[in-house]
Amino acid sequence: MSTHSPLRILVINGPNLNLLGRREAGIYGVATLAEIEASCRAEAATLEVEIDFFQSNHEGVLVERIQQALGACELIIINPAAYTHTSVAIRDALLAVALPVIEVHLSNVHKREPFRHHSYVSDIALGQVIGFGKDGYLLALQGGVRYLRGRASG
Amino acid sequence: MSTHSPLRILVINGPNLNLLGRREAGIYGVATLAEIEASCRAEAATLEVEIDFFQSNHEGVLVERIQQALGACELIIINPAAYTHTSVAIRDALLAVALPVIEVHLSNVHKREPFRHHSYVSDIALGQVIGFGKDGYLLALQGGVRYLRGRASG
Amino acid sequence: MSTHSPLRILVINGPNLNLLGRREAGIYGVATLAEIEASCRAEAATLEVEIDFFQSNHEGVLVERIQQALGACELIIINPAAYTHTSVAIRDALLAVALPVIEVHLSNVHKREPFRHHSYVSDIALGQVIGFGKDGYLLALQGGVRYLRGRASG
Amino acid sequence: MSTHSPLRILVINGPNLNLLGRREAGIYGVATLAEIEASCRAEAATLEVEIDFFQSNHEGVLVERIQQALGACELIIINPAAYTHTSVAIRDALLAVALPVIEVHLSNVHKREPFRHHSYVSDIALGQVIGFGKDGYLLALQGGVRYLRGRASG
Amino acid sequence: MSTHSPLRILVINGPNLNLLGRREAGIYGVATLAEIEASCRAEAATLEVEIDFFQSNHEGVLVERIQQALGACELIIINPAAYTHTSVAIRDALLAVALPVIEVHLSNVHKREPFRHHSYVSDIALGQVIGFGKDGYLLALQGGVRYLRGRASG
Amino acid sequence: MSTHSPLRILVINGPNLNLLGRREAGIYGVATLAEIEASCRAEAATLEVEIDFFQSNHEGVLVERIQQALGACELIIINPAAYTHTSVAIRDALLAVALPVIEVHLSNVHKREPFRHHSYVSDIALGQVIGFGKDGYLLALQGGVRYLRGRASG
Amino acid sequence: MSTHSPLRILVINGPNLNLLGRREAGIYGVATLAEIEASCRAEAATLEVEIDFFQSNHEGVLVERIQQALGACELIIINPAAYTHTSVAIRDALLAVALPVIEVHLSNVHKREPFRHHSYVSDIALGQVIGFGKDGYLLALQGGVRYLRGRASG
Amino acid sequence: MSTHSPLRILVINGPNLNLLGRREAGIYGVATLAEIEASCRAEAATLEVEIDFFQSNHEGVLVERIQQALGACELIIINPAAYTHTSVAIRDALLAVALPVIEVHLSNVHKREPFRHHSYVSDIALGQVIGFGKDGYLLALQGGVRYLRGRASG
Amino acid sequence: MSTHSPLRILVINGPNLNLLGRREAGIYGVATLAEIEASCRAEAATLEVEIDFFQSNHEGVLVERIQQALGACELIIINPAAYTHTSVAIRDALLAVALPVIEVHLSNVHKREPFRHHSYVSDIALGQVIGFGKDGYLLALQGGVRYLRGRASG
Amino acid sequence: MSTHSPLRILVINGPNLNLLGRREAGIYGVATLAEIEASCRAEAATLEVEIDFFQSNHEGVLVERIQQALGACELIIINPAAYTHTSVAIRDALLAVALPVIEVHLSNVHKREPFRHHSYVSDIALGQVIGFGKDGYLLALQGGVRYLRGRASG
Amino acid sequence: MSTHSPLRILVINGPNLNLLGRREAGIYGVATLAEIEASCRAEAATLEVEIDFFQSNHEGVLVERIQQALGACELIIINPAAYTHTSVAIRDALLAVALPVIEVHLSNVHKREPFRHHSYVSDIALGQVIGFGKDGYLLALQGGVRYLRGRASG
Amino acid sequence: MSTHSPLRILVINGPNLNLLGRREAGIYGVATLAEIEASCRAEAATLEVEIDFFQSNHEGVLVERIQQALGACELIIINPAAYTHTSVAIRDALLAVALPVIEVHLSNVHKREPFRHHSYVSDIALGQVIGFGKDGYLLALQGGVRYLRGRASG
Repeated sequence: MSTHSPLRILVINGPNLNLLGRREAGIYGVATLAEIEASCRAEAATLEVEIDFFQSNHEGVLVERIQQALGACELIIINPAAYTHTSVAIRDALLAVALPVIEVHLSNVHKREPFRHHSYVSDIALGQVIGFGKDGYLLALQGGVRYLRGRASG
Repeated sequence: MSTHSPLRILVINGPNLNLLGRREAGIYGVATLAEIEASCRAEAATLEVEIDFFQSNHEGVLVERIQQALGACELIIINPAAYTHTSVAIRDALLAVALPVIEVHLSNVHKREPFRHHSYVSDIALGQVIGFGKDGYLLALQGGVRYLRGRASG
Repeated sequence: MSTHSPLRILVINGPNLNLLGRREAGIYGVATLAEIEASCRAEAATLEVEIDFFQSNHEGVLVERIQQALGACELIIINPAAYTHTSVAIRDALLAVALPVIEVHLSNVHKREPFRHHSYVSDIALGQVIGFGKDGYLLALQGGVRYLRGRASG
Repeated sequence: MSTHSPLRILVINGPNLNLLGRREAGIYGVATLAEIEASCRAEAATLEVEIDFFQSNHEGVLVERIQQALGACELIIINPAAYTHTSVAIRDALLAVALPVIEVHLSNVHKREPFRHHSYVSDIALGQVIGFGKDGYLLALQGGVRYLRGRASG
Repeated sequence: MSTHSPLRILVINGPNLNLLGRREAGIYGVATLAEIEASCRAEAATLEVEIDFFQSNHEGVLVERIQQALGACELIIINPAAYTHTSVAIRDALLAVALPVIEVHLSNVHKREPFRHHSYVSDIALGQVIGFGKDGYLLALQGGVRYLRGRASG
Repeated sequence: MSTHSPLRILVINGPNLNLLGRREAGIYGVATLAEIEASCRAEAATLEVEIDFFQSNHEGVLVERIQQALGACELIIINPAAYTHTSVAIRDALLAVALPVIEVHLSNVHKREPFRHHSYVSDIALGQVIGFGKDGYLLALQGGVRYLRGRASG
Repeated sequence: MSTHSPLRILVINGPNLNLLGRREAGIYGVATLAEIEASCRAEAATLEVEIDFFQSNHEGVLVERIQQALGACELIIINPAAYTHTSVAIRDALLAVALPVIEVHLSNVHKREPFRHHSYVSDIALGQVIGFGKDGYLLALQGGVRYLRGRASG
Repeated sequence: MSTHSPLRILVINGPNLNLLGRREAGIYGVATLAEIEASCRAEAATLEVEIDFFQSNHEGVLVERIQQALGACELIIINPAAYTHTSVAIRDALLAVALPVIEVHLSNVHKREPFRHHSYVSDIALGQVIGFGKDGYLLALQGGVRYLRGRASG
Repeated sequence: MSTHSPLRILVINGPNLNLLGRREAGIYGVATLAEIEASCRAEAATLEVEIDFFQSNHEGVLVERIQQALGACELIIINPAAYTHTSVAIRDALLAVALPVIEVHLSNVHKREPFRHHSYVSDIALGQVIGFGKDGYLLALQGGVRYLRGRASG
Repeated sequence: MSTHSPLRILVINGPNLNLLGRREAGIYGVATLAEIEASCRAEAATLEVEIDFFQSNHEGVLVERIQQALGACELIIINPAAYTHTSVAIRDALLAVALPVIEVHLSNVHKREPFRHHSYVSDIALGQVIGFGKDGYLLALQGGVRYLRGRASG
Repeated sequence: MSTHSPLRILVINGPNLNLLGRREAGIYGVATLAEIEASCRAEAATLEVEIDFFQSNHEGVLVERIQQALGACELIIINPAAYTHTSVAIRDALLAVALPVIEVHLSNVHKREPFRHHSYVSDIALGQVIGFGKDGYLLALQGGVRYLRGRASG
Repeated sequence: MSTHSPLRILVINGPNLNLLGRREAGIYGVATLAEIEASCRAEAATLEVEIDFFQSNHEGVLVERIQQALGACELIIINPAAYTHTSVAIRDALLAVALPVIEVHLSNVHKREPFRHHSYVSDIALGQVIGFGKDGYLLALQGGVRYLRGRASG
């Protein structure tokens, strides 16, 4: 169903991540989203995959960006941020496109408020990478590519 | 308050229903939203009512579409999809326009994840039609028209 | 498994529905059960199906009437009334005969006491029609016949 | 709605109360149901009211006996026994006849298993008399007659 | 331990009952506490028992009044009012004096806020008389005297 | 209290068990209730005890059949089926006759819906045999006879 | 029911507020209760209303002070402090006098222990002013006077 | 960090508040949002502060408007309306800009549905003003200005 | 997969069962574990199966003993004792070896502390034999052998 | 902050402890409160500290006695009795004086009713001594003096 | 059953207590387990009792050490550390040996994570000494010896 | 605190992971633990770090292996398997050594039984890598080394 080259991966970011590096650095780190995107693009080049990197503060826009992945990419890496805990619509969009999903969180959500311990994405995802700050995206890219290539060769 | 002819009915659809027929057919069926709209229009013609058929993935857009029904129609049929379970804003919009509301779900939500068993719409609706796939819209139209005409003549 | 003509449908009513029209008209409406039966028979004639219409106040009698549907009808429409919320025995009888089931409630149970929000039938039913008063039976008949004929022709 | 003479009161008893005096005397006392009935009849004579005294182990039979009180008596005194905690059908029958209801329990249910602390009758009753053994019926008769006569003269 | 004549009964009333007849008549009735006391004294005379009738708005004062019953009376009738739901101190005082206790409530607490459904007294009482307004005190007096005389002669 | 010969055992079966062999064979097995009764009678003959084998779909009938065991048998083996989870009346009947009770379930209820994990019988029974299909009755017979004979000789 | 001049307002303070300024200044601020009273009196003069300012550590005393407001003032501003979370007696006193109530808390109770998130006063109050320290009393005075004058002129 | 003149305050309003004065006047009052804005501007002039007054039905738009307050104002007054109970994204935006926040609700949310008793804003706010209708905005302005000026001079 | 002769069965016992006969005889009976082992060996001889009988107080040792059953026996009878309620590791070991499991408890756990009502083994077992004291092992052996032979011949 | 000699310790006792030795000796022991006070005074003499020993049945009086400890002693030993489970006011008084607190209970509260398992004092105390009867006070005195002297010399 | 001299006491310590003095000194203090043992031995000498002092990180080893106390000592002082909250096996071992048990915790567990507020030992223990650091062992020794000598002389 | 070369990392594996490749391959994959260890060693060589790779089925052994990491390594990667959900002792050992911890799970625990959704390690870990099968260890190694080197250079 997927071929080795070039794998296309959608990296999608939820609300307030546009403020990264300017907000609560103790929790989220000092890197900006642009710097994270640059790191991802570098890692993607090394891994010989294509990525699409997207952020929105709007639930509906995120839903529609996920919908567009249908037939257009092989994997979604998502940091749903606040919508992790409140959006069934994003869950349903992910279910609808039926692609493997990797959930990323910059901070360790289990150290924070109890409502951040539940995710509407976790049980429909391939897996999670949580608490590694900006490195989490790179680990997710590596893990996702390994998964897709393993599945293709499996 | 309402007159027999022509009754105006707003049929409103929530997130991801634009993908109908292309997603999870085992749960939602093979009909597209356009086909459902066509069936509704045919049924409306038979029932001699006017319908407005609308879909959006955006909570705020749905809220505003409901607000516009104030004074412009006599009944709302709504399939809030994912927002059924998470949107107090849609509930409040429905309360604000104070029209009778019929809640429709394509699938039987009671067979699915527990969070789908709660609806922010159910207790403020006239009633529910759940689990009949695309036919649910037609049943809701008939039930709604019967209700409005019964009330008018009652 | 089922044939088009004549489809046989069991319409089954739980406790206290024999008092309809005489009790709490604000909640349940003014139609008597005999009038509802008459409406159903008229609708069944239009739909060219056969119906069996039954009421009992006894859980065990309802269980046995459901058991008798095994091999004798293609669909059960049930308004379990109070037993909706308390009877595993009726649930088990419905599971045993393994027929499609449509759950009907006259009033919108979600507007009432919390214990009425849970149903032992909902998750094993095809669907629900709730809150349409006596019209709910007619919608269920139509929805059920559409379902059976769609399945037969599907 | 009610007249002073003769007030008619239905005293209704739920499952296993036919065994009174022969079962768990430590909890329920040594009086038989026949002796309780005799005490009630004596008290009714003193109070110049008529009583109907009834017991059944069958939920459906109890439902129907309550239904028959519609128009035939002014007050129901009920010891629903085990059905206190499980029967919505009896609750619905009591709601349907819309008579004042006094709930009686021989033993203090609050000293027993937690599931006996909830009653489907309590919040729709006029009041409760709990823990007085067989005397509870007599207190309920007196309290009920006072209530009816106070209302009539009020 | 107790003798037939004269039985001494403490009737004890909790906070805000001094306002009876002046507050929320729809819930608590129009009789004042003085009128209730007079009724109780009349009933006590008929029953040939002595009563002590007491009210306080202070938890500590109520605790101490209960403590004084030790050796000074054979039964406590208590309407703890608001302290029903919050006072472990009153419960402990009742446990300490180890007398039979009858709990009385003017209104049917089960029709009111959920926090009024729990009582710190119920499971240590002989029984409850709930929802009979001022008559509840008289029923409790009768029930209590029957209990004491039955036990003495038993 | 009991003698060795002949021990009398009541085997009592709840709702829908009359359909065994015809319903949900994947859960309940292919044996009919008549075949189970025959196996039980054979085992009883081997064990030199008498059995009474009974089934009803009616809660009240089951209650009364249990009541009749008072003085007429030494042990009750009961598969309450759906009433396991909903019937306080059956619990109270078992408490009333005060005989040792063995609870049997054909299927492993712990693998099924959560509401099947609670039993109103378990904490008043001698023990449970769960998940062994029709063999469960035979194990219960053996276990019960061993218990009674051990107690008699103990 | 109330007249414009002079409105009388009872400002009532619960336990430990006599220690203000001497305890946990990080939470409650450095103003003493006498200073708060002085500010309130100044604001009352500006608003041309009369105030009564009261503090007690005793639940019963607070109950009785509220009772005395019956017919003596038009509004109650209450900071029930610890009794916010535990006193049904104060709630009942407020219900009994049936005056508009404004609930004030110095600190933001929602930042503190979970048991401080529930108030027995909130749902019977006109509104709340929470977290503004000593200024909360002044805001409550202004808001209360606006409310009473708006109602009088409405 | 903040200076005395001119303080800039963002007043932000959530979904359906654009309908004020036209919806559910019994709950929300008869003032329109434009009238509330006018009152706020008048009060701001008196207090010698600048305000920005904003409403949106879109969660994402509200998030972005809050983000823009970073460095542009010293205080946020927010009536999140329905999003109070469902939006972690708004909470996170408020946390990101790290400004003092005052939460306002027109109606007393504690008198309404239980889901309205929880707020995602309360524990990160300075305080709340609840139940004062349109006056709540004015109280919040005064309270906020007092807070900022007190902090500046403190 | 399994052959008739000789079936090999692992009987495994959890912590503190080495004390049987010396501890809490009222709950667990007077038989020692050695006596239970002897009874099991006698029953196994009659049934013509081989058994391995094992006890440990160490969770890790029990895990490893279960692991060794992989390929070495056809059935596990386990009384996990205290680990029933706390050991996911034993559950995982049982899942790993994927053999049919029969859970045995000497006492009726449903009569004891609530935490003993939950078992990490029940929903992955074939069935349970509970409350029969030492006879439970023999019933489990019989039931297990019937199951294996039925499956083999099925 | 504290000096070695003489340390002053307040020993404070809640409601119904004045009845010690006369109530429920099985739970609380046979020593009277006067005897406990005498033991404490003897122990205090040995430890060369001063103690103040106090009891009240009134929550408000206890609150005020704790308030008076501010600056007047170095440690509070408290047996809040029933108020342990219900008094936030006592908790707040203890927080206000900000002294180390040792919580003592005569009986092992964990063996009693579930509501006695929660304490409003435990999480703000230095520690607890529970279940040692009257000796608990002596252990608390020793432990408290060790703590204060260790801290002073630390 | 026990004699005055020499009483034998087992002091038993759970997992990670071997690290005392090297881990989280802010919570557990700076004393090593060897120093605590030395203090205990000194106190035991003063009290003229014998002690056995034991630590293990292994649940099974702790279970077996407790089992060996059967007949070998008169009292167990246990700091189960992490196993407090998870080990039913240790609870069962303590129940099996049926000796008085004193539960000790170095830190005040009620100030820590909620899962540390529940103990599987508390309700079967004589009592608890919590939050006194290493002194807790000495208080437990004194309290235990007083208990045993009081019981012997009682 | 840590130096660049050579970083030492402990990789620790919980119960039943010794069966990997032989058990439930659908959940855990086909790789054996030896193969995972080999992959880890290869990755460690590439990353120029030293690893220690350890597995045990015994909670106490795991606790002690973690304790030995104190001063001997800079990072712990742990797959606690079943002990994730039940072991406070492992949590406490990790807290005691106070090293950064990365939690790894082969399968996506959020797709499995609810009890697997809670981890005693998550809130004290640096982060989690979940659902990537054997690749999870490699991602954790990379993430951990990035973290340590970033911290050292930061």
